[in-house]
Amino acid sequence: MDNLILHEDPRSGNCYKIRLTAALLGLPIERRAYDILQGETRTPEFLANVNPNGRIPVLQIGKRFLPESNAACWYLATDSALIPTDRFEQANVLRWMFFEQYSHEPNIATLRFWLHFVGEANLSRQQQSQVMAKRIAGEDALALMDAHLAGREWFVGDAPTLADIALYAYTHVAEAGGFRLADRAHVMAWLARIAALPGYVTME
Amino acid sequence: MDNLILHEDPRSGNCYKIRLTAALLGLPIERRAYDILQGETRTPEFLANVNPNGRIPVLQIGKRFLPESNAACWYLATDSALIPTDRFEQANVLRWMFFEQYSHEPNIATLRFWLHFVGEANLSRQQQSQVMAKRIAGEDALALMDAHLAGREWFVGDAPTLADIALYAYTHVAEAGGFRLADRAHVMAWLARIAALPGYVTME
Repeated sequence: MDNLILHEDPRSGNCYKIRLTAALLGLPIERRAYDILQGETRTPEFLANVNPNGRIPVLQIGKRFLPESNAACWYLATDSALIPTDRFEQANVLRWMFFEQYSHEPNIATLRFWLHFVGEANLSRQQQSQVMAKRIAGEDALALMDAHLAGREWFVGDAPTLADIALYAYTHVAEAGGFRLADRAHVMAWLARIAALPGYVTME
Repeated sequence: MDNLILHEDPRSGNCYKIRLTAALLGLPIERRAYDILQGETRTPEFLANVNPNGRIPVLQIGKRFLPESNAACWYLATDSALIPTDRFEQANVLRWMFFEQYSHEPNIATLRFWLHFVGEANLSRQQQSQVMAKRIAGEDALALMDAHLAGREWFVGDAPTLADIALYAYTHVAEAGGFRLADRAHVMAWLARIAALPGYVTME
């Protein structure tokens, strides 16, 4: 495989997903850090050379650039046990990865970013007005995950997949966004199973 | 393949994606309509039997249910030319599908829903306060698409893929959300290429 470089902000769960996938697969990956709070992913150089969408993470593979955290995980995990080959199970892994980006991350990761890194006092009025809706939607996502995990160990099938990695990234730090994980017993047990996987690395 | 049933609201671009994928692949698909404005996807029966997330579309495959529009498209298109087999190109298709669900749909589809179906006068204050941010983010997404399509015919590689289908669904009706497509010449030409594909079906 070409040399792998992760363009990241180490505080970002979306970036951590890619590091965790690489670690579980034993793939070496170089890291380049950017500070999103300082606008380092919105510079003309970044937009022209790394990602025109001005976001991290971006996985660089040789001279090619791949934005979107879950797409980068997919690239790394191609032909590995983290992506099932069964047609329904493979689509079902993507189902949870799209759920993560649509129903989970915009609520749980955004509240962590706003409350833990930006600070509640520094939020715009427009952001403040969204906190309660994101709180409710984030709790709904955690409740749905907890119900799904009742009676099963992993999100899809009977082994860890990219669905688990994608959902783990922001779930395991959800308390920094004001979510109470202790109420979600199945989620808690599943978090512990992931942290026990061979090759597991912590977020920071 | 097992019998396919699409649980949908016919006004939803996310549902249309699945119908368009099936049509381009020549797969017959049965349709069951729900009215999201009447809460028909939040009933106890729907939550228990179709999707605990209370959303359409859901693709039913025999007795199994697959939520998330892009995951359903992936299921249908497995082993077809709509998903490239090259490792980077396949991940790059997913990159655009995640871009669609994260940076495009929450802005462009939501404004269409709010302004065209709910009606501006019926929006909550919290929704009203988000209109301008969604307008800007939606225009950013369209500008990024237009720049990407300059000098190329399709989003990934040199043939249509699921990336094109996913992005087409809400782009081609973006004007119902107040976006002006005539300003995006490359997007307009790409929309016309998709509408000319053999097997193409319209949204309504």
